[in-house]
Amino acid sequence: MLRRVLCTMLLMGALPSLAEASQGHISVVLLGATGDLAKKYLWQGLFQLYIDQVSSGHSFTFHGAALTDLEPGQKLMFDVLKKLACPPDESPNRCAVLKDQFLKLSQYHQLKTSENYTALNREIEMLLHQEGLKEAGRIFYFSVPPFAYTEIARHINSSCRPPPGAWLRVVLEKPFGHDLESAQQMAAELMSFFREEEMYRVDHYLGKQAVAHILPFRDQNRQFLDPIWNRHHVERVEIVLKEIVDAKGRTSFYEQYGVIRDVLQNHLTEALMFLTMELPGNLSKAEEVLQCKLQALQSLRGLEKQSVVVGQYQAYASHVQEELQKGQDYVSTTPTFAGVLVHSDSLRWEGVPFLLTSGKALDERVGYVRVLFKNRAYCTQSEALRDAGHSQCKPKQIVFYIGHGALNTPAVLVSRNLFRPIMPKSTWREVVGQPDLHVFGQLLSDYYMYSPVKERDAYSVLISNIYHGRKDFFITTENLLASWAFWTPLLNSISHQAPRLYPGGVENQHFLDFEMMSGELAFTVAEPVELLNPSGPMPSDYKTIQSKFRQSPLVSAWSEVLISQLASDVEKTASRAVARSGQFHLALSGGSSPVALFQRLARHHYDFPWRHTHLWLVDERCVPLTDPESNFFSLHNHLLQNIRVPYFNVHPMPVHLHQRLCVEEDGGPELYAKEIMALVANASFDLVLLGVGTDGHTASLFPHSENGLEGAQAVVLTESPVKPHQRMSLSLPLINKAQQVFVLVMGKGKHDITTQISRVGHEPRKWPISGVNPSSGQLVWYVDYEALLG
Amino acid sequence: MLRRVLCTMLLMGALPSLAEASQGHISVVLLGATGDLAKKYLWQGLFQLYIDQVSSGHSFTFHGAALTDLEPGQKLMFDVLKKLACPPDESPNRCAVLKDQFLKLSQYHQLKTSENYTALNREIEMLLHQEGLKEAGRIFYFSVPPFAYTEIARHINSSCRPPPGAWLRVVLEKPFGHDLESAQQMAAELMSFFREEEMYRVDHYLGKQAVAHILPFRDQNRQFLDPIWNRHHVERVEIVLKEIVDAKGRTSFYEQYGVIRDVLQNHLTEALMFLTMELPGNLSKAEEVLQCKLQALQSLRGLEKQSVVVGQYQAYASHVQEELQKGQDYVSTTPTFAGVLVHSDSLRWEGVPFLLTSGKALDERVGYVRVLFKNRAYCTQSEALRDAGHSQCKPKQIVFYIGHGALNTPAVLVSRNLFRPIMPKSTWREVVGQPDLHVFGQLLSDYYMYSPVKERDAYSVLISNIYHGRKDFFITTENLLASWAFWTPLLNSISHQAPRLYPGGVENQHFLDFEMMSGELAFTVAEPVELLNPSGPMPSDYKTIQSKFRQSPLVSAWSEVLISQLASDVEKTASRAVARSGQFHLALSGGSSPVALFQRLARHHYDFPWRHTHLWLVDERCVPLTDPESNFFSLHNHLLQNIRVPYFNVHPMPVHLHQRLCVEEDGGPELYAKEIMALVANASFDLVLLGVGTDGHTASLFPHSENGLEGAQAVVLTESPVKPHQRMSLSLPLINKAQQVFVLVMGKGKHDITTQISRVGHEPRKWPISGVNPSSGQLVWYVDYEALLG
Repeated sequence: MLRRVLCTMLLMGALPSLAEASQGHISVVLLGATGDLAKKYLWQGLFQLYIDQVSSGHSFTFHGAALTDLEPGQKLMFDVLKKLACPPDESPNRCAVLKDQFLKLSQYHQLKTSENYTALNREIEMLLHQEGLKEAGRIFYFSVPPFAYTEIARHINSSCRPPPGAWLRVVLEKPFGHDLESAQQMAAELMSFFREEEMYRVDHYLGKQAVAHILPFRDQNRQFLDPIWNRHHVERVEIVLKEIVDAKGRTSFYEQYGVIRDVLQNHLTEALMFLTMELPGNLSKAEEVLQCKLQALQSLRGLEKQSVVVGQYQAYASHVQEELQKGQDYVSTTPTFAGVLVHSDSLRWEGVPFLLTSGKALDERVGYVRVLFKNRAYCTQSEALRDAGHSQCKPKQIVFYIGHGALNTPAVLVSRNLFRPIMPKSTWREVVGQPDLHVFGQLLSDYYMYSPVKERDAYSVLISNIYHGRKDFFITTENLLASWAFWTPLLNSISHQAPRLYPGGVENQHFLDFEMMSGELAFTVAEPVELLNPSGPMPSDYKTIQSKFRQSPLVSAWSEVLISQLASDVEKTASRAVARSGQFHLALSGGSSPVALFQRLARHHYDFPWRHTHLWLVDERCVPLTDPESNFFSLHNHLLQNIRVPYFNVHPMPVHLHQRLCVEEDGGPELYAKEIMALVANASFDLVLLGVGTDGHTASLFPHSENGLEGAQAVVLTESPVKPHQRMSLSLPLINKAQQVFVLVMGKGKHDITTQISRVGHEPRKWPISGVNPSSGQLVWYVDYEALLG
Repeated sequence: MLRRVLCTMLLMGALPSLAEASQGHISVVLLGATGDLAKKYLWQGLFQLYIDQVSSGHSFTFHGAALTDLEPGQKLMFDVLKKLACPPDESPNRCAVLKDQFLKLSQYHQLKTSENYTALNREIEMLLHQEGLKEAGRIFYFSVPPFAYTEIARHINSSCRPPPGAWLRVVLEKPFGHDLESAQQMAAELMSFFREEEMYRVDHYLGKQAVAHILPFRDQNRQFLDPIWNRHHVERVEIVLKEIVDAKGRTSFYEQYGVIRDVLQNHLTEALMFLTMELPGNLSKAEEVLQCKLQALQSLRGLEKQSVVVGQYQAYASHVQEELQKGQDYVSTTPTFAGVLVHSDSLRWEGVPFLLTSGKALDERVGYVRVLFKNRAYCTQSEALRDAGHSQCKPKQIVFYIGHGALNTPAVLVSRNLFRPIMPKSTWREVVGQPDLHVFGQLLSDYYMYSPVKERDAYSVLISNIYHGRKDFFITTENLLASWAFWTPLLNSISHQAPRLYPGGVENQHFLDFEMMSGELAFTVAEPVELLNPSGPMPSDYKTIQSKFRQSPLVSAWSEVLISQLASDVEKTASRAVARSGQFHLALSGGSSPVALFQRLARHHYDFPWRHTHLWLVDERCVPLTDPESNFFSLHNHLLQNIRVPYFNVHPMPVHLHQRLCVEEDGGPELYAKEIMALVANASFDLVLLGVGTDGHTASLFPHSENGLEGAQAVVLTESPVKPHQRMSLSLPLINKAQQVFVLVMGKGKHDITTQISRVGHEPRKWPISGVNPSSGQLVWYVDYEALLG
């Protein structure tokens, strides 16, 4: 029926506003016109666009499309259109007229077959021809599931491109893939149909007013922010989206994605970029903005398992079982809550913790971006007598309040003791709110608070930006892939990790509080027992076992306790050596087990006589010292960086001489041996720390090695069965001259070899570790329960 | 009269408690027995000692002494004694008896001449003989002005020493000197009369219950504090003593001392030591405690002018003018307020700011030691719904509250979200206080709060410790001198600095608030104009001169300003280079002038991108790197030790190869040249820092050198006319490839050569420095006024 009306009107040349379109005509095609998103936001956003731009010189038609047949589709769509609301700031009369026009300019199309697309294209061309209109461009808004993208994209590309001179903009909705690989694949497909500048990937967070104002705020307040927007002044940043709702009814989607893919990878990461990116000289240049944003994304430090805490609300399992018809034994590890500690390696932000947090079934619905500054002041006047407003001893923060929560409005908050911000008066107004409200640890009256003059829905903001061609409000392919490249390793590493269960709502109490510690995150309170997954005994339940192993003292415990005992014993040995001779010569092995020891020594042994300690390497891989594979590099990262050993006392192995690695004629082993002879009395180290490989190797002395198991050489080149093959190593005879030798063995993977060597005699050719037998010194074994007991 | 009573009683053998003294007799001599301190605290403390120890097995006599004649002295003293108060926890009956006994055991002596001392000694001996008592020891409490110390000490030493087997303890009251030199002199004098173990220097702060409990608290709560009592967890420490009173009536003392000598050098420093020292294994071993304390004192980083803010209350000038009969034009720079930022270089505390603050005429009387921990938590539950008590998002702190202020009692406060401390129940009890009181930014109900079961005056605590021979409650000579060694350079550097004037009392508002910034302190608000002192021009009033020298830019200023300008310019160059290429290659010269630069960089340039900086040597002496003559050694001492440059980025010159120095066939220069080629793009350093010798040499390129002034060699061996003769040096051609070259020339001794080279052309064979002429880089001269103007 309406189609007939439109046709009639077209014939009469009476479509509203089309005639004066000197700037050309814009056709908007909304694919999925009767879906949830369209119903809830998109049609309203298009109507707002029409209201705003009706006098812009452009003419418009709006084409809803879906798979449904024409008649029922038309009905469904016009039911939605009839309910469109007039914006509160619009005069009811004008709005009624405009709504009437908008309805007349809108029509429904069934878009299913390629003929349908051709027909749509023909209709648009006909209309333009009949009205004598120049074509400005076409917008195709994909409000459809991503699996349908390729098919639609192909049709648009082949049948619906506007003629040369007019632009094409396709608008895409997330999810944009599931990980880096799927995102790359999807991007590659889309790029076979569209050019980069034609694609507008929506992250509706970028349309949230408080988020969209981060960059303008930074730009307009440069004079205040320039000196403080950096690691020296920012204590931490929190980027938070909390929800009350759970995933019920959505688990078919949610179970595949989880909170990190659903919220952190996109919304929170985008907000993070707005905070951390360098400000381009000119904010209105989308290219520059996007470039700076991409750089910021690329300087994020890689995430590890330890960078995250994840949770799952207790009822989630039953929601999944019901909705996905899973059995009682199905265990989902999909997180519905995550806290992630992100660091940037840029000079500006190095060391500043960025905490990204989101979850479902929490106590409140709220979103915010909070920048907390360091407090460097001492206030001499007593608290009671301080002038409250501007005291430098109160917290200093800037909050971009996205909405909901206690304020229930988008807002920008700036602590009064920081500065009075410059805000554009036409769009943000200063408000007072409830002065006694506590927000972020302060009274609301402690802030300058601004809220939007006109609250606008994110989609209406974004649709306006699509119309204006503001690419910087959308996600470029590069940006998208960089974000997935950042998140995918973390997602992979935690895919089988059991999330902490939480009751949901206010019952969560402190269960989801978490803390940063040495660059890692951990929940603050222990998991309540009734929620606990059945798991083994905790380290602290067992004491260290003292016993014998291969006729030598054995210390055994759970790994954490073992390392702490070993670290104490190393320190004791060091103090005794320094007291005796003024020096402590310590030779350290590479590999992963010692890393925990290095960290323990750096963090807990402030009395360690580092100033009098000489550090030697037991073995080294033939790679440059700055190669992450290098044993010295690991020692440097985990220990040297955090302590103060004089430069002269550090003795890396000379594997890299004359710009080449472990070449025999360069005489590296001889050089190292000479250095040892020159500095270590009798070439007898005070302490040598060794490990054991699953093949029974120790140091870099492998079974059946030609060098180093016997003979006069102190330092030797050897061959490893695994890469990098070439190694340098102290020899067994030199190791056996030491005053003390500690052998550290940890982990289930070492159980078999531990059992094996507990049984063999002195057979260094077969098991090099069995040749460790200090001639006048002491040997102690540190073996954790996993290695000892399996 | 009383003397006669005493004599009578002695003859009758009826002195109370003397008879059962199986542990021996203790004679306490209070010198200055009728002075203020004695009246107010000391007699009361001695009475308390008697009450506590009457059944200890020791017997006591108390000898007040002063210069006053016998009769009036006796009267004065017994007027004081009669007013002695009974402690509230003592039964009135017992106390009355004990007070009566105490009075009987006390007598007055005039101690003026050497005969007086001999007489005193004779009386003590007679009494002991008559009563058949063994002598345990003698306490001489010097409650007299320090100028009288030497005289009294001489008399005691020559006439009043107890016989062998009994101990002597002399108790000394501050001031212990005025600066390091006077303290050394005073200590030397005292040590000519007394052995170290005989001297008990009082700092009454060590008797304050909250201060005295710091070490026991740390010891008893090791399990909680071990992981957090360090730079990784402590955000800052405040040690504060605020007074309401001003210096009126005391200016004759105060004008010479000021707040730093009066309070910071002693009381606050002692409290600081209790916090920062390593805990000895056994707190009851005074020797160990004192040793750890001394170590902590010695690891404090030196203070500079910029480490302090000072103030003077406005009325102070008039107080001084009145009391010291000074004219209107007399300007006092004595600070009555000071805030000092102290850092420890120990591994435990590196980087943690310790703020020591004290002042007169402030808004309140209060003393506290506050340890604020870093907040590393994120609380997922909204503020309104959090369980208040234990939220990890509230501040975490431990406060040793010395007294007065809002709590009006000594107390130990521990935030409930930290831990419930272990406190000795016999001496500290948990209290509730006013839960709604705000202290240190939290409600009192957020803390576990403990106050003493029995409030004890500091002097009574100390007198008890003298009796028990607890030397760790007193200041040893080493401790005292180390403290003066720490404070004296600061006192000297600010002795002519005009303090900020402040109105006094609550009027101070925010005038005395201060802030930390890059290791310096500054008042937060600008000084109000009407309070400004007319004062001479400050260094910052002189601008650096910018001009030309040898056709290149010249920066000239007094040496301190010059170095600070140079350091800033080096940092700017570094940041630009890192922004451009991710690296900064800096080549540094040896010699004395750069030392000031190294120190400045280490202390004031926390932003410096050290992690991305490579350090190279411009020249080196052919000595081992650990030789104090080595340029690298100096660089290591003054710079490397204090910053964090990755090991790989440090490039000492290879002067020491194959255990020999600069042997041509070892190819050191070639090795260094290769290293430069491998790492520095185009072998073009980002910045080379040079000096100039009085003979016009630069780097180790001396006039008429055969090597390095021209030719293809990048690194050369050269000969110096002075020892050590052999040198390694970058060549002129390599230096001239640099992006920037800064030449630093300082001191009167360089005036002649400066004048000379300002006149000559390009004559590198005669004046090597004249050959410095970067081919495409920039050359800047930094010449101080002394070198430039003579």
